[in-house]
Amino acid sequence: MKIQQQLPIHSYKPGNGFIGSYQKLIRNVVIPYQYEVLCDKAEDTEKSHVIDNFRNAAKALRHENTGDGFYGMVFQDSDAAKWLEAVAYSLSVFPDEKLEKTADELIDIIADAQDKDGYLNTYYTIKDKDKRWTNILEGHELYCSGHMMEAATAYFEATGKDKLLKVMEKNAEHIYNIFIEKGHEGYPGHPEIELALMKMYRLTKNERLLSLARHFIDIRGVDPHYYEKERKERSWTVWNGDGRNHHYQQSHAPVREQKDAVGHSVRAVYLYTAMADAANTTDDKQLLEACRNLWNSITQKRMYITGAIGSTVHGEAFTEDYDLPSDTAYAETCASIGLMMFASQMLQGEVNGEYADIMEKAFYNTVLAGMAKDGKRFFYVNPLEVIPGISGKAVTHRHDLTQRPKWYTCACCPPNVARLISSFGKYAYGEGKDTAYCHLYAEGEVIFSNGVKLKCETGYPYNFIIRYIIEKGGKIAIRIPGWSKNHTLTVNGIKTEAEISSGYIYLTANDGDEILLNLSDEVKIIYPSSRIPTLSGLVSIMRGPIVYCFEGTDNDGDVLSLRLRKNGAIKVKSLDCEQLGSTVQLELEGLREHTCDSLYSSQEPAFIPCTAKAIPYYLWGNRGENQMRVWIPYK
Amino acid sequence: MKIQQQLPIHSYKPGNGFIGSYQKLIRNVVIPYQYEVLCDKAEDTEKSHVIDNFRNAAKALRHENTGDGFYGMVFQDSDAAKWLEAVAYSLSVFPDEKLEKTADELIDIIADAQDKDGYLNTYYTIKDKDKRWTNILEGHELYCSGHMMEAATAYFEATGKDKLLKVMEKNAEHIYNIFIEKGHEGYPGHPEIELALMKMYRLTKNERLLSLARHFIDIRGVDPHYYEKERKERSWTVWNGDGRNHHYQQSHAPVREQKDAVGHSVRAVYLYTAMADAANTTDDKQLLEACRNLWNSITQKRMYITGAIGSTVHGEAFTEDYDLPSDTAYAETCASIGLMMFASQMLQGEVNGEYADIMEKAFYNTVLAGMAKDGKRFFYVNPLEVIPGISGKAVTHRHDLTQRPKWYTCACCPPNVARLISSFGKYAYGEGKDTAYCHLYAEGEVIFSNGVKLKCETGYPYNFIIRYIIEKGGKIAIRIPGWSKNHTLTVNGIKTEAEISSGYIYLTANDGDEILLNLSDEVKIIYPSSRIPTLSGLVSIMRGPIVYCFEGTDNDGDVLSLRLRKNGAIKVKSLDCEQLGSTVQLELEGLREHTCDSLYSSQEPAFIPCTAKAIPYYLWGNRGENQMRVWIPYK
Repeated sequence: MKIQQQLPIHSYKPGNGFIGSYQKLIRNVVIPYQYEVLCDKAEDTEKSHVIDNFRNAAKALRHENTGDGFYGMVFQDSDAAKWLEAVAYSLSVFPDEKLEKTADELIDIIADAQDKDGYLNTYYTIKDKDKRWTNILEGHELYCSGHMMEAATAYFEATGKDKLLKVMEKNAEHIYNIFIEKGHEGYPGHPEIELALMKMYRLTKNERLLSLARHFIDIRGVDPHYYEKERKERSWTVWNGDGRNHHYQQSHAPVREQKDAVGHSVRAVYLYTAMADAANTTDDKQLLEACRNLWNSITQKRMYITGAIGSTVHGEAFTEDYDLPSDTAYAETCASIGLMMFASQMLQGEVNGEYADIMEKAFYNTVLAGMAKDGKRFFYVNPLEVIPGISGKAVTHRHDLTQRPKWYTCACCPPNVARLISSFGKYAYGEGKDTAYCHLYAEGEVIFSNGVKLKCETGYPYNFIIRYIIEKGGKIAIRIPGWSKNHTLTVNGIKTEAEISSGYIYLTANDGDEILLNLSDEVKIIYPSSRIPTLSGLVSIMRGPIVYCFEGTDNDGDVLSLRLRKNGAIKVKSLDCEQLGSTVQLELEGLREHTCDSLYSSQEPAFIPCTAKAIPYYLWGNRGENQMRVWIPYK
Repeated sequence: MKIQQQLPIHSYKPGNGFIGSYQKLIRNVVIPYQYEVLCDKAEDTEKSHVIDNFRNAAKALRHENTGDGFYGMVFQDSDAAKWLEAVAYSLSVFPDEKLEKTADELIDIIADAQDKDGYLNTYYTIKDKDKRWTNILEGHELYCSGHMMEAATAYFEATGKDKLLKVMEKNAEHIYNIFIEKGHEGYPGHPEIELALMKMYRLTKNERLLSLARHFIDIRGVDPHYYEKERKERSWTVWNGDGRNHHYQQSHAPVREQKDAVGHSVRAVYLYTAMADAANTTDDKQLLEACRNLWNSITQKRMYITGAIGSTVHGEAFTEDYDLPSDTAYAETCASIGLMMFASQMLQGEVNGEYADIMEKAFYNTVLAGMAKDGKRFFYVNPLEVIPGISGKAVTHRHDLTQRPKWYTCACCPPNVARLISSFGKYAYGEGKDTAYCHLYAEGEVIFSNGVKLKCETGYPYNFIIRYIIEKGGKIAIRIPGWSKNHTLTVNGIKTEAEISSGYIYLTANDGDEILLNLSDEVKIIYPSSRIPTLSGLVSIMRGPIVYCFEGTDNDGDVLSLRLRKNGAIKVKSLDCEQLGSTVQLELEGLREHTCDSLYSSQEPAFIPCTAKAIPYYLWGNRGENQMRVWIPYK
């Protein structure tokens, strides 16, 4: 059962704070830039061709010459879908007729690419109609449909226009026909459609969408050899996948029996998101129990301090418990977005601050790190340590780039960041039967379905005073983050007696009340579990939800020889510069280790006092190539 | 010019000390066991078939049915060669008629497999004669010939029997004909034959062997695209190698221009060994300069504290400067053997203790770690940290096994260890025009060509008193290792005034003199260069040449939470147990870190005093699966 759920998109309007400024960056820079990419008009960028793919697919359906045909990855369609979804959320915050017209036109182009039977995928429509539904392992047909269903749902929610929604309902009907009525035994190679069907079900109340979502969840891994059989029956492949790595594709066991988070980390959390949504929606306790196990596996054993997941580039995947290398991390941006989605769904069934804590951790660290401050460059991979000369260069570190690259052909993360930031209100606030939930601290105005209307003012995440001005009263639940060692909550200046229950304070506010939450602004030394081999003897620094890092630029170009002095003083300084914007820098008492030139020596190094300067991790890599490190020896 | 060179094999007879006991283990266990493997008579071991390959090749030459044909790797022949070489060295120390007869019979079988034109390789002879010399990149024909030349040289040196030597001289003549006279443009895919030709040249003085070795050295990398062209000209491959990774195969530039040690680490050091030998033999200053650069690249930037090299499993290769991860190391046993060979050649041209220091470091740590105490199991890969649950399991750690496996199909390291240990005298002692050189401390009797005859008594590497009893006097040079902070050297009880010159003390001894060398027995804390990212804040422990490690077995099963107390007391304890034999254990003041259950916490861990117990690294993994760590936090 869902105790509370995400707000409708129009219910949150950001102010001029941190979230608002990021949403503006998405609106003003990222969305236009990404549209140029989709149209192949952006400079110095890999070709996308995604819109032309849709145009050419329409030609193929009309039996016309398909021109320059299909170009890109087999899942190229999803770039257009994620862009449209971001546009939808953005339009709800910043209405923009011109942008809406552009989106409408793109929807027309997409609609034209749909076959009579509801099928929609440009790769197969252009290339080879006969291959449809023969390669569920690699083909990404269900994945692309899923993303387009998410876009359709969001666009209807934002604009009230149902053209794309109708296209995708027809598409879902087609898929229902293939997989349920005709009995196709496949299940999604890249889980995504499951969560999209749940979203579309919530909007349309069409029970067939729910049952299709449940079908894909329930049959997954029941026959773990499905993909191998499928492979034997066809003569073509995309990447020569043989379907034998069952853990990679989360098909090693029925999902209800899965205990460890394994395999491709984005696929994993997309799947778990759908599982949690379905479990809460249909009150499926067994499925929810599986979700809890998987959640615990991630957050108690397989997650970086930045909320990043997926330790290895091999399969972009989870590895083993406590295997969390900083330097060779994969830690994909999309995976942390997926973790936020999973957390948000878990939180809907169980209002527990732990879920919101992780959601916040993933957002303020890995998700934001995924995008440069200028909104034009993007990290897929988010290592916690970068050393030029090794990172991006050694064969084991090739994926760990020292600088954010531009858009690439496999452009999953950039539009994913855009849609996540634009829909931040859905993660920050929630509404239950009679309670308004404030999960994350996002400045702006919020209207809840229980009638509560409030305005939130805050300088969060750099200032820890959150002021809620209650325009219309009612029951409110406000999260107290697990990282805040102490807090005060006052209503009209009077300290509340209410105790924290599972990370939330529940109170009833009256019209005109002013609720003031003060969270701890303490800079904290964070100690890793001794079970994490790569972090022995190291510590990291946090302030609020923000993980800090040390960059060479601030530390004489050499972070490797930097040590933190135990119990040293820490200064909190405002910093405002062009490359980083307005932020908070930390100055800590440090020691500079001077070792001799040889690789190994019995000569004790000298330690010279110095100042160690740290900036928020999410801002790293905005000032040129240099060393970066989150974890640092503590002496 | 060679200032000094390795002793003839008969010149050193071990005593009952450390070296002697290892040579006996090789003689009594390893050689018989490996022969059983070669004959496919060993239990629970992967099939070798190597002797049957030679028998079947002989049949092929006689146009008879080849029976069960060829089995194994394309370089399977080399296992027989390395075994024969080990046998040769062993026979010179421990004469054994029965073993010699077995070796003679194997040589007969090998000789029968040689074609009329001198060609010798069972893979091609059995499988497809027409493929000869068409795949120099992967085919290993030159590699197998090289190992057999080494065996032939050693066997003649040990027994005076020249049957195999004649076979290999004829084989060399054939190769000379193909590559020099007929102008085949290839150069060895896996360098090895170059150093073997140099060895055979030194024995036979046949100038054509020297010029063939120089030819292979000189043309390497002159046309870096040779392998790619070769690939295009043939329709078959062994491993689908395309020859495009020039660094992997050290063909990216002419060898004289190579500065960084790159690519497959065994290939690299085999090549550099031959380069150093040729440079010193022919007084080629430019080539020697290249060797010095490559030596410095390895020892100043790319070597583990254990003398291991090759940081990554990908290509079993060097990576980048200071990229020396403990847990994902490849660190192949054969590569450290090759490093000893390279060091020994460098030392022949320049008597500098640094070369001997590294030779010793590689031997007492990685090379010995390559073999279990019982002589029956072997590590190819020698990580400096092993954590069950991650090591051998996570996709990035699959190669880092927690226990020594038995012999495998790709059996390069086990016989390599056997031949190295059996020929230890060649590395330990050297002879110049008029000086006897004592490079490493190996108990036993030594006769030098300058007439010096001495007996060395020592409990090294666990006791640091080395006694040389001079039976016949003359000029002697004794190395003082770089790791010994202080030493005393007495001649007949009188402290010598002689100063250290490049790591050696030179003196003239008289008949009957007793020279006593006392080296430092201090346990040393070793600090890594701050440029090595993975070792920040960690230290390791050495005593003499031996690197220590911490194993779970001695430390309550948990090494990950173990810390060393800064400036804590250290106890040196003799340990004698069945699994480790007689060794020295260290007991250090430690701290046990108690962190809370969560992955990351702001709660400061508790540190409870404890005793940290360390054993020599080379003995790790002899007591069942457990955690192991060389580098440890120092608090």
